[in-house]
Amino acid sequence: MIEPLYAKSFASDNHAGAHPSVLDAVNAANFGDAPAYGDDRWTAILGDQIRAEFGDQATSLVALNGTGANMISLSLMLGRRYDAVVCPDTAHIATHETGASERVLGVKLVTVPTPDGKLTPEDVTARLGGRGNISEVQPRVVSISQVTELGTCYTPAEITALADTAHANDMLLHMDGARLANAAAFLGCSLRDLTTDAGVDVLSFGATKNGALVGEAVIVLRPELAEAGPYLRRQTLQLASKMRFISAQLSALLTRELWRENAAHANAMARRLADGVADLPGLSLRWPVESNAVFAALPTEAISELQSRYLFHVWDAPSGVVRWMTAFDTSPEDVDTFLTDIRQTLKA
Amino acid sequence: MIEPLYAKSFASDNHAGAHPSVLDAVNAANFGDAPAYGDDRWTAILGDQIRAEFGDQATSLVALNGTGANMISLSLMLGRRYDAVVCPDTAHIATHETGASERVLGVKLVTVPTPDGKLTPEDVTARLGGRGNISEVQPRVVSISQVTELGTCYTPAEITALADTAHANDMLLHMDGARLANAAAFLGCSLRDLTTDAGVDVLSFGATKNGALVGEAVIVLRPELAEAGPYLRRQTLQLASKMRFISAQLSALLTRELWRENAAHANAMARRLADGVADLPGLSLRWPVESNAVFAALPTEAISELQSRYLFHVWDAPSGVVRWMTAFDTSPEDVDTFLTDIRQTLKA
Amino acid sequence: MIEPLYAKSFASDNHAGAHPSVLDAVNAANFGDAPAYGDDRWTAILGDQIRAEFGDQATSLVALNGTGANMISLSLMLGRRYDAVVCPDTAHIATHETGASERVLGVKLVTVPTPDGKLTPEDVTARLGGRGNISEVQPRVVSISQVTELGTCYTPAEITALADTAHANDMLLHMDGARLANAAAFLGCSLRDLTTDAGVDVLSFGATKNGALVGEAVIVLRPELAEAGPYLRRQTLQLASKMRFISAQLSALLTRELWRENAAHANAMARRLADGVADLPGLSLRWPVESNAVFAALPTEAISELQSRYLFHVWDAPSGVVRWMTAFDTSPEDVDTFLTDIRQTLKA
Amino acid sequence: MIEPLYAKSFASDNHAGAHPSVLDAVNAANFGDAPAYGDDRWTAILGDQIRAEFGDQATSLVALNGTGANMISLSLMLGRRYDAVVCPDTAHIATHETGASERVLGVKLVTVPTPDGKLTPEDVTARLGGRGNISEVQPRVVSISQVTELGTCYTPAEITALADTAHANDMLLHMDGARLANAAAFLGCSLRDLTTDAGVDVLSFGATKNGALVGEAVIVLRPELAEAGPYLRRQTLQLASKMRFISAQLSALLTRELWRENAAHANAMARRLADGVADLPGLSLRWPVESNAVFAALPTEAISELQSRYLFHVWDAPSGVVRWMTAFDTSPEDVDTFLTDIRQTLKA
Repeated sequence: MIEPLYAKSFASDNHAGAHPSVLDAVNAANFGDAPAYGDDRWTAILGDQIRAEFGDQATSLVALNGTGANMISLSLMLGRRYDAVVCPDTAHIATHETGASERVLGVKLVTVPTPDGKLTPEDVTARLGGRGNISEVQPRVVSISQVTELGTCYTPAEITALADTAHANDMLLHMDGARLANAAAFLGCSLRDLTTDAGVDVLSFGATKNGALVGEAVIVLRPELAEAGPYLRRQTLQLASKMRFISAQLSALLTRELWRENAAHANAMARRLADGVADLPGLSLRWPVESNAVFAALPTEAISELQSRYLFHVWDAPSGVVRWMTAFDTSPEDVDTFLTDIRQTLKA
Repeated sequence: MIEPLYAKSFASDNHAGAHPSVLDAVNAANFGDAPAYGDDRWTAILGDQIRAEFGDQATSLVALNGTGANMISLSLMLGRRYDAVVCPDTAHIATHETGASERVLGVKLVTVPTPDGKLTPEDVTARLGGRGNISEVQPRVVSISQVTELGTCYTPAEITALADTAHANDMLLHMDGARLANAAAFLGCSLRDLTTDAGVDVLSFGATKNGALVGEAVIVLRPELAEAGPYLRRQTLQLASKMRFISAQLSALLTRELWRENAAHANAMARRLADGVADLPGLSLRWPVESNAVFAALPTEAISELQSRYLFHVWDAPSGVVRWMTAFDTSPEDVDTFLTDIRQTLKA
Repeated sequence: MIEPLYAKSFASDNHAGAHPSVLDAVNAANFGDAPAYGDDRWTAILGDQIRAEFGDQATSLVALNGTGANMISLSLMLGRRYDAVVCPDTAHIATHETGASERVLGVKLVTVPTPDGKLTPEDVTARLGGRGNISEVQPRVVSISQVTELGTCYTPAEITALADTAHANDMLLHMDGARLANAAAFLGCSLRDLTTDAGVDVLSFGATKNGALVGEAVIVLRPELAEAGPYLRRQTLQLASKMRFISAQLSALLTRELWRENAAHANAMARRLADGVADLPGLSLRWPVESNAVFAALPTEAISELQSRYLFHVWDAPSGVVRWMTAFDTSPEDVDTFLTDIRQTLKA
Repeated sequence: MIEPLYAKSFASDNHAGAHPSVLDAVNAANFGDAPAYGDDRWTAILGDQIRAEFGDQATSLVALNGTGANMISLSLMLGRRYDAVVCPDTAHIATHETGASERVLGVKLVTVPTPDGKLTPEDVTARLGGRGNISEVQPRVVSISQVTELGTCYTPAEITALADTAHANDMLLHMDGARLANAAAFLGCSLRDLTTDAGVDVLSFGATKNGALVGEAVIVLRPELAEAGPYLRRQTLQLASKMRFISAQLSALLTRELWRENAAHANAMARRLADGVADLPGLSLRWPVESNAVFAALPTEAISELQSRYLFHVWDAPSGVVRWMTAFDTSPEDVDTFLTDIRQTLKA
């Protein structure tokens, strides 16, 4: 699929380009020589920013993409060959990473059905029945996505409860934070409220969907896990040689909370879209809109008609659920134009 | 190590920044929405350029770093769980990827000692004694680096001989072309002369050391191997979501042979450096200078003295061999200043 | 747990010893020298017997245990690093092999909830929605257990339907036949009816639970998959050096259908047990008794009371379901004694 | 190769059958029911014998074959995904396990050329140059074979020196003791002298070559490594369900030092063979005869002639080196007949 002259895409926050400030930072980083593999000034600055944001015990590992950040994160936490990960069955690591967890890490994912993409402490404890049974894998990590793959958010209290459950059972808590910024913007809290202070042990921190061009980070919040990080990053194919160009992007997003501005705007556009369709007959929202994603059920013919003019994904064909995503650069006009077309399509 | 006020680094071509034309291309690609994961115009253009350069049967897979490109390449070629790779014992995949081949791919590397980093057909056939022995791994891939890790180059005829040997023995030929551009510049031939036309089956094509900021490519020259590529790239943690920003960089390097210009310049600077030390007593060149690397043996005290002012790596401490690398942006003045300091240090 | 003076165990058919004819065969095989690793007369004879039983295209690989046989079988069928296995969520490979599929093979198991441990063609086709999506694993193998882990059996027609579905979708059918003998005895058919003639591609053929002391086999029914077998068996840690001692055991079980005699007897004892409890108030059978396993729900206190005198496993504690298994050497008196105790316990 | 009417095989100690006492023990273990997976009386007795032999801190894990025992052993010692193993390039794990170390464990073997199959402390320390370099694997285990694959033995002092070197460098010492009994018999010492007391951390303890029919053991001498053992054994496909039949065999070999009797006899037969050829023109011994293996160089035609009547392996075709092995049941007459034929062949 090479794009025709589409209107604004509602398919993914990855369809957006890079935020101008991110590009400015990349351009500025192209200055003279710099040691490779992270021994540069830009990465050092990023490390300071990460500590300021997440606390002094935070160690950051710049990575190249989200799957890579997740695999580094999990490998830091999985010490024994029979350790397993408990996660929702909608988790990105379980559904959309082409089996990287099993193939690259060799780990079994114990997947849990959920109504809304969110794991509960009871979901975790219910999977501990095989503890000490040598024929069963041993759950060692709880992995949650914030924002979830269904666009919902965990509150700080919900995360804390999961962390407490994990720690009480000799487990660790991983957060796939590909859209952590959107959650913090929605909940009106800090990144730290949702991670360090809620008991998260290792975080995959997303930047690309928030306005970077390429790059993510692993943030290790439990210091004793940090030492292996640089080895695992290299082995897990995630080490950038000219790292300054990745670090500078994350640094730009962390400067004066540009991440929040971008996320809040994307969220507002999703809210505007959701509000605009709320009263439409024949259309219903599938999950609460708590980030930059709107999941809506509508008739198959309407989906087809809209897809002829707009890029977006069908989430579940049998139930006619589609996913509409907004980005930092979605404009109110983009949303309103889309809304007009949705209304006309549903009327027809 | 956070860099002090060093002079030009001679440690690695990764210490250089990005070529201005590469950055221009990144900035230009930040235009509107584009489908993610490679379904964009920039990646389509790159595909056309790759085919123009390497032949119509070439399929390209944009990747994120060199180790990633190598792992995708090898995984495309290794079909059976007991297939093995024959490579020089100096190969990057064997020495500097933290065991990714074994850990991520599960493959045994059958490593061969060489005088100059270059594998010969005899090296390969000598490792086939276990063919059909079910207790031994079965060599399936020959992997060579062009330029080698010792700065030497294979001629087209040498590559052809290796490819013929591989194919005659039901094996495939992989080339780690992290510095393929430097080889083509040194040998005065096309990229195609050294790959497609010489019988290479899969190529890891380097861009970062040639002036990109982040990004490489896998180029599949044997069409029947291509189908698995997109799955393996995603699983091997190398899929860029906003791929246009990587593709645009490679595209810039392939436009009007910017790759050659950059590589030829770097090579010329290495030549200038090598020529400048050729007559120095107490210093000898370790391998022929056929790219942008100079390997020199010199006294330990001289090494220490020079390292206090310049960034470069000791290659082999016991024999006092150092590696000096030049880049697309190394200037004649950088080299001459360094030469002056080397001469003074050796005199002292 | 070192066994006290228990009565006959109802915990597992693995608690039984070896059948006398099996031991006789082992003793007889201890005659002179024999080439190692399967180049011996006993293994040759076994190969003939396997072909007589399963058809001329059958290739057999003697293995050491059931998990080993399963891992060899699956590895023979999984050619691409992103191939996946569809199986019931009760499958032994999914629940009781400590994650060997994920760790040793690197494969994702796509697990399906079932009411009775049996997969249907619809279960398979419903998991093919991600075909061609490079972010998802690609189902390549359907794996079923015959007898299932819940003691139920697939009819030949049900297996054929699954094989047809698999083959129509470019997939292969694996059967974990740890208790295949019990199924054939229950269904009154041949081993071939349930495998070769039903379209099974690779079979893990159980012997230990049927009366062997140690040893199983992989039987490859699709000839083009056979070549890799010996390499994969060695690599998968399943090659017996003095293989004659394993082959002789399987050979004994295949001689004059000793396997059927053993299985039919075990099945009859389970039937006797099930019939004996059928009318007991407070006890209900959980699944149909179609092999040598009886799953019964009874009050928690009764379970505790019985476990103080008999070895058996609690299958599902919350619902009070236990598993009682019989073996080739369970006697009618063993069953009747147990029945008496069950009745008394439930009355109390 | 199905054996013709060969004379005694000199190909492998695996060509011999089982020692009568071992078979007696298997037959005796076929008594009543016994819990599966090691919770039986025979395995408990074996555990006591192992502790008596190796010391109170020894934990034993019965395994199914030598490769399996090696993989369990190494997996117990390799905690980090970038840990590596240093071993001789002749090590069985490196040459004859079809890449199981790389495929099943994901570990890189750092192989060392040696004159006689024996690693030295200097060999180890010379491989530690990459310590702390995140691009290189980190040596964590030293693995040696006792007896070596070349038939030579480490003295207790040599093992102690290796253990000291390993421990001083935060490494562990693994011994592949497939023929440990032969070494102890040759050196006139106890099993403990060569293992526990010499600083070995984990031992693969061989039984099959010493007279068992199938079965080996992992013996963990460093208690803090033991906990993971049962999980890793199951996951590594090495758990015997009716374990009593394996345990009983090892138990028989450990009773009244039957292992030593068997090994000493085999060694004596190798000595007799070596002495008998010592003076033959055209034949030379390749390595000292310190166990039950004789490596001899002789003319190609003589090899062919002898192979037409005797089973034995060519070790290195170019240099005309063959391996002749004796077993617990090789008789002086077997050796003398072979010697007569060797002499005649060399004269011809």
